[in-house]
Amino acid sequence: MKRIFEIDPWKIVTHSLDQDNKRLQESITSLGNEYMGMRGMFEEKYSGDTHHGIYLGGVWYPDKTRVGWWKNGYPAYFGKVINAVDFVSVDLQINGESIDLARDRYTDFDLELDMQRGILRRSFTVFKGDAKVRLHSERFVSTACKELYANRLTFENLGKKAVELSISSVIDANVFNEDANYDEQFWDVLAHQAKGQELTMTSQTIPNSFGTPQFIVAMKAVHQTSLTFQKNETSPKTVAALWSGELGPGDQAEFEKKVLVTTSRDYPSQEKIELAAERLASQQGGRAFAELLAEHAAIWEKRWEKSDVVIEGNAESQQGIRFNLFQLFSTYYGNDARLNIGPKGFTGEKYGGATYWDTEAFAFPFYLGATPAKVTRNLLQYRHDQLPGAFHNAQEQGLDGALFPMVTFNGIECHNEWEITFEEIHRNGSIAYAIYNYTRYTGDQEYVHHEGFDVLVGIARFWADRVHYSARKGQYMIHGVTGPNEYENNVNNNWYTNLLAKWCLGYTDQIAQEVSDQKLAELSLDQKERSRWREISNQMYLPADSNLGIFVQHDTFLDKDLTPVKDLPQDQLPLNQHWSWDHILRSPYIKQADVLQGIYYFIDQFSEEEKRRNFDFYEPLTVHESSLSAATHAVLAADLHKEDKAFEMYSRTARLDLDNYNNDTEDGLHITSMTGSWLAIVQGFAGLRVNADHLSFAPFLPKEWTAYSFRINFRGRLVSVAVNTEGTKLALLSGDDLEVILNGTPVFLETEGK
Amino acid sequence: MKRIFEIDPWKIVTHSLDQDNKRLQESITSLGNEYMGMRGMFEEKYSGDTHHGIYLGGVWYPDKTRVGWWKNGYPAYFGKVINAVDFVSVDLQINGESIDLARDRYTDFDLELDMQRGILRRSFTVFKGDAKVRLHSERFVSTACKELYANRLTFENLGKKAVELSISSVIDANVFNEDANYDEQFWDVLAHQAKGQELTMTSQTIPNSFGTPQFIVAMKAVHQTSLTFQKNETSPKTVAALWSGELGPGDQAEFEKKVLVTTSRDYPSQEKIELAAERLASQQGGRAFAELLAEHAAIWEKRWEKSDVVIEGNAESQQGIRFNLFQLFSTYYGNDARLNIGPKGFTGEKYGGATYWDTEAFAFPFYLGATPAKVTRNLLQYRHDQLPGAFHNAQEQGLDGALFPMVTFNGIECHNEWEITFEEIHRNGSIAYAIYNYTRYTGDQEYVHHEGFDVLVGIARFWADRVHYSARKGQYMIHGVTGPNEYENNVNNNWYTNLLAKWCLGYTDQIAQEVSDQKLAELSLDQKERSRWREISNQMYLPADSNLGIFVQHDTFLDKDLTPVKDLPQDQLPLNQHWSWDHILRSPYIKQADVLQGIYYFIDQFSEEEKRRNFDFYEPLTVHESSLSAATHAVLAADLHKEDKAFEMYSRTARLDLDNYNNDTEDGLHITSMTGSWLAIVQGFAGLRVNADHLSFAPFLPKEWTAYSFRINFRGRLVSVAVNTEGTKLALLSGDDLEVILNGTPVFLETEGK
Repeated sequence: MKRIFEIDPWKIVTHSLDQDNKRLQESITSLGNEYMGMRGMFEEKYSGDTHHGIYLGGVWYPDKTRVGWWKNGYPAYFGKVINAVDFVSVDLQINGESIDLARDRYTDFDLELDMQRGILRRSFTVFKGDAKVRLHSERFVSTACKELYANRLTFENLGKKAVELSISSVIDANVFNEDANYDEQFWDVLAHQAKGQELTMTSQTIPNSFGTPQFIVAMKAVHQTSLTFQKNETSPKTVAALWSGELGPGDQAEFEKKVLVTTSRDYPSQEKIELAAERLASQQGGRAFAELLAEHAAIWEKRWEKSDVVIEGNAESQQGIRFNLFQLFSTYYGNDARLNIGPKGFTGEKYGGATYWDTEAFAFPFYLGATPAKVTRNLLQYRHDQLPGAFHNAQEQGLDGALFPMVTFNGIECHNEWEITFEEIHRNGSIAYAIYNYTRYTGDQEYVHHEGFDVLVGIARFWADRVHYSARKGQYMIHGVTGPNEYENNVNNNWYTNLLAKWCLGYTDQIAQEVSDQKLAELSLDQKERSRWREISNQMYLPADSNLGIFVQHDTFLDKDLTPVKDLPQDQLPLNQHWSWDHILRSPYIKQADVLQGIYYFIDQFSEEEKRRNFDFYEPLTVHESSLSAATHAVLAADLHKEDKAFEMYSRTARLDLDNYNNDTEDGLHITSMTGSWLAIVQGFAGLRVNADHLSFAPFLPKEWTAYSFRINFRGRLVSVAVNTEGTKLALLSGDDLEVILNGTPVFLETEGK
Repeated sequence: MKRIFEIDPWKIVTHSLDQDNKRLQESITSLGNEYMGMRGMFEEKYSGDTHHGIYLGGVWYPDKTRVGWWKNGYPAYFGKVINAVDFVSVDLQINGESIDLARDRYTDFDLELDMQRGILRRSFTVFKGDAKVRLHSERFVSTACKELYANRLTFENLGKKAVELSISSVIDANVFNEDANYDEQFWDVLAHQAKGQELTMTSQTIPNSFGTPQFIVAMKAVHQTSLTFQKNETSPKTVAALWSGELGPGDQAEFEKKVLVTTSRDYPSQEKIELAAERLASQQGGRAFAELLAEHAAIWEKRWEKSDVVIEGNAESQQGIRFNLFQLFSTYYGNDARLNIGPKGFTGEKYGGATYWDTEAFAFPFYLGATPAKVTRNLLQYRHDQLPGAFHNAQEQGLDGALFPMVTFNGIECHNEWEITFEEIHRNGSIAYAIYNYTRYTGDQEYVHHEGFDVLVGIARFWADRVHYSARKGQYMIHGVTGPNEYENNVNNNWYTNLLAKWCLGYTDQIAQEVSDQKLAELSLDQKERSRWREISNQMYLPADSNLGIFVQHDTFLDKDLTPVKDLPQDQLPLNQHWSWDHILRSPYIKQADVLQGIYYFIDQFSEEEKRRNFDFYEPLTVHESSLSAATHAVLAADLHKEDKAFEMYSRTARLDLDNYNNDTEDGLHITSMTGSWLAIVQGFAGLRVNADHLSFAPFLPKEWTAYSFRINFRGRLVSVAVNTEGTKLALLSGDDLEVILNGTPVFLETEGK
């Protein structure tokens, strides 16, 4: 654990610059608006250790697969997010020398991420010789105009002499990825111009041999300042504008930079991309920074109205949950169905900015409750739009139907480790489950009967072809998979995977009864095929051990040496930093919920005895070395009234990044895991379930807190749930009257003003 | 199948240049002398498709691992052979134009690999305008002086006018590998000089960051010719000498190039490497080509005396077995214990020229019988010398003892697919088995009691740590392995691996009874440790199925869909060209002998019933898509008196490369599989076994042949075995009297001259 920011309910704030943890600071102070985002690196020069990262949603590059391509069906490339052309940097000079806090003397450093309004602020007083200047910076990426980045700098001469202040603002295509493999640059400059206070650059990703898009990005930077424009400078990959001016003692100067970023994702040609940047610049660029900021902040306020979680009696928890919500909404708020939720969002390059099963398994249930239904509907749409890729992926394996990718930008699998690519097929189950979950939660039947059914049938056809019949056991089996526990690979009959396959086939058959004949005909789905689905579903092998009364993670799991984690030498944890991959694979230790993930999905369909036995068997073997593990365990522990265990599990997710719990937040935030604290509170502590069109709650108050409350979006209503030592108070904040189940008893809610 | 050479008992010969199969021709006409070798590319320019490949034994480069390195214990690099600096090329011009058979008109083309004497000869008549010139080329890499490559060219003007003949001989460091990953050049030139008819170059492999050696290679080329020296040319990476002369009608010209190649593998400094090249050039370079050739050919004649196999009634078989012996001896003849047998020898770049388990499993038993004992002793020594690397490999996995590498140049594992690197640990068993096999065959106890025991103890310690105890089964198990059947990965309790582990522990404990107390003390081996070995060995789990009466390939093998290969659509074979890797992994189809490999190793320890049941169960599931599969099956089939099946299996290995059976010989020859035809004949058809210090035979004559005979090296004797329709004739050609078992009956052999 390492905590470098102060505790505050709405702010991430520090009064010191910790140069040894600069990257950690940058990750935590990242900003994003779904469309683009950036780490919290400084605008001005910084010669110390830093990770300058700016990313554009859906803009990526396919890296050629260099190992394993000789295996038939192997992905040809690994997709990765690329660092965008730098539009943030500004060189600030005092008396001809660049401000550089890695070298300069400074005082009164303040850094503050304002989560309520979505603004990053920074100020400090810097000394250069006998000059003493105070600088304030404010920046945001606009939620009101997605293409807009705005930065305001103000300077005050606190010294006794006049100082010469000069500013150079750039757009710079000389950027590299942190990715250590290759020293490539990914941007070719198509056009650039520096014309007075306006800078433009159009760049394009370098060619690739896989037929994936070459993205074109236009940037237009406009500036307003009290300083005097001096000149422009251009080089093959940069454009710059320079200003300067003298500041007498006590004098102030202001500088505003607004950059409009448009891409080929939204416009069909270089000309139209550039025209759009021009148009947006003329619409937005001349407006006052304060006005743009107010528009942006108002949208954040509305988001908080719908989704805030208040925790009393524990300031750390309060800050933790708000930070997680803030960073999740910065990554995704459902405004573009072509985008998804990268495990690091816009905060780093690890995991390549691509879409993982994290979305459906962990982010989806959060967005279902925390945001309006259109957000999750767009997450479903994303997968539907990628069905052609999923058909392709299955075909590459020689299989029918749709195999959604483990990692992707475009629907085509782009991760190149076979044990993940070919074998972690349980993802298909989560994608079907999300459709079920959405339908159950929202009551919207329209999706599942149309686009959703296309997806379900594709997935069902995949499972029906992927199973094989074991003559010896007289049951259907699934060999050669990797379950959610990635500390085992290539196992046979992973209970979780088999359960999901069985369920998918049954559920798709059930929905097939509801859809139109036209839809069935469109998909050429007949009774014979459905009958085969039912046969497989009914005869699916689900390994279990009657002596232990548990479901068995996979065929030979119980042959392992089952020493519990608590009996391991503690200096060997985390295992992934101390044990070889071989050692881990052969061990019984579970990276993240596997059998328990299946029980979590269908939590009301297992008896308490079944849940308890499996939890008590598997949790002691679980090392929780995936940040995705804790939430599932928290919800199950709460369900089993193991309140201390539930709170312990919640604690692992609550401040995972703020306290750098896994010692890797310098690489970026664990965005998809951030949903864990919300799930632990809402599904765990408050016991939220949705069954038979009813919301239900069975809350408890963790003894570490005095009260907590949150808001839930449900079928057009906004419901408030407040839990304190005296009990639970439910309120309907907006929408139609609603019957809710509280601790097993129906409660009728009307809006308060009624 | 594609056959481009004629049938001939001692020659590989063709009278046409098949430009569409030029690479195949080059692979088949490769030359080697253990120290170095080259493909059969032309010396002169050839603008068509060609693979120019020259390789130096033990000279390699470590390619950085780019995928999977984040797994603890993963190899940091992949080692690969690199194409040597080109010392073969000679540009031949007639009237100022280069001879280039891809473009020129020519007649009377002859190409001939003389296997009896180890020479590659080529001749043709080429037309250039009205010029008509006949060219002969002869070349060899000397078995008498390993550093020597020699090439003689003769020219005859068959036209009616005088022609201007000019020759440019080069040493050229502008070489690339075929390997498609990177466009790197691997050689830096340290020094080079062109001085009249002598060319020198010293080059060094480019730096690497893994601490593996940078090899320095000096080359000195000397020339003798009837033409007139004109000038030298040098560039940063080349040196050249030019000659020319006029040939009147009917005139002849001669040109000899001799290159001496010395390396840092044999000399400690650049200066000494260069001096050695100078010295050798002064010793050998001035000698007549014919004299050098005679010395070289005499050594080949001696090899054939010891090892020839004669097959009557089938000229294809005769040529096939001689070709295999020729290419094996070109790759390895035991003269340098630091070298080993790459799967492609000096004939291509695939498999990186490294050492695989192929050596002990397939090449070792061949060399035991076909060559003097010092050859196999050196193969054992190679592994002993690499024990530090094997300790390192085990330690990287967090395990005790020695884990010999799956792929290596220096003892350190250098293959980067975890399912092979971490899991194909059965290789350790074959390395121990080779010691046992050597000791049994040669009667030499000295090795196993000294160096061999070091190796055995290292291996036993590895197994003892790699097993785990299954409380449920009450037996020791080995999880997470890949057996010889690489069409499955990461299986549990692979019967073959468990059998070898059990045997290794028992055998090492047995040898421990025989070694000196000093040796035991040196290895800190005590009774407690030996007792644990015995416990594991005695309680090792060996999966078996009592209903089927078979050993089970691994825990869940019998749950698969066990459709035999013959019932598959034939257009899906070979599977590795038609099925995805995922499909293959889940299938029951066996790439090469797995359970049967274990039965082959201990062929006399299983009942005929056991052998028959397992053969009849597994062989129908075996696709033989490794070239290493057929020999084992041939020997077992012969043992079971399945003579037709034995001959069918033999046929797959006999002319694998000559008939391009697998359609990939253009990449290089299947050197380690070439032992298969010898094993099929000697261990299979002739039933060679060695037990209780006696050679035994139980021959049959395949109905496709009229007779066959071979020679066996056994404990200082040379024994001849001749089988024809009338029976078997044994003869002792040299060495002390010997009792041999023929068809169960002792036969006393004396040398004939006695």
